[in-house]
Amino acid sequence: MFYNELKPGDAVPALVKEPIQKVQLIKYAGASGDYNLIHTDVETARSVGLPDVIAHGMLSMAFLGQFLSELAGAEGVKRLKVKFAAMVHLQDVITCKGTVKQVTPADGNRAVVTLDVWAENQKGEQVTAGEAEVYLPGH
Amino acid sequence: MFYNELKPGDAVPALVKEPIQKVQLIKYAGASGDYNLIHTDVETARSVGLPDVIAHGMLSMAFLGQFLSELAGAEGVKRLKVKFAAMVHLQDVITCKGTVKQVTPADGNRAVVTLDVWAENQKGEQVTAGEAEVYLPGH
Repeated sequence: MFYNELKPGDAVPALVKEPIQKVQLIKYAGASGDYNLIHTDVETARSVGLPDVIAHGMLSMAFLGQFLSELAGAEGVKRLKVKFAAMVHLQDVITCKGTVKQVTPADGNRAVVTLDVWAENQKGEQVTAGEAEVYLPGH
Repeated sequence: MFYNELKPGDAVPALVKEPIQKVQLIKYAGASGDYNLIHTDVETARSVGLPDVIAHGMLSMAFLGQFLSELAGAEGVKRLKVKFAAMVHLQDVITCKGTVKQVTPADGNRAVVTLDVWAENQKGEQVTAGEAEVYLPGH
């Protein structure tokens, strides 16, 4: 993807994740070091009034990180800032989306592209939303 | 501990672990890479006829590894070979024990001490048992 093909308002390619599975939450507990059992133990989740375990908020931010890495390469991700808006449940299908806010030419043949980014569930509800900056090359 | 204070039949100091908790099994899933949900998800465990999640068999072997490391230092553990004998459940208190089988002088001022080792639960049932060799210094 090249910055000079983008203008404010353009959508960038979405990233659609597989449905959230229990095993992913077990793995993410280890990856993140967040061992709060509401993410991995249904009995703990129910004891606090949830129907089942819920995903770590950071997991949908991590999905946005993957989304940006696929857009700009891991080295091209300059900034990502999000707020958590809604819980992510088992079997939710999270899609990461973004639209261009601004294109600012930078050093070398590249630009900083500012994006509105968000992760939404299969009902179209935003679960995490914020802003990102990536470096994209020109052509 | 010095090898020349040990003779066949002697017991070495036991290691008593904290009761098995859910969060330890979540952590051990990540540490071991064994994400079989019978160790972390009560619904999966019940679907195969278990009353609740059970510990990874390798976890009690890991406890024996800790037991030997505390005895001989991590570098002093030469060999550990075990068989799994019984399931480990939540709240089980595992104690690692060993008795000396053989003391074989080795190079330098040390010996290879062969031990019968096992992990047992709070009912005295062996859950994992086998043999180990450690290097111990002399004095």
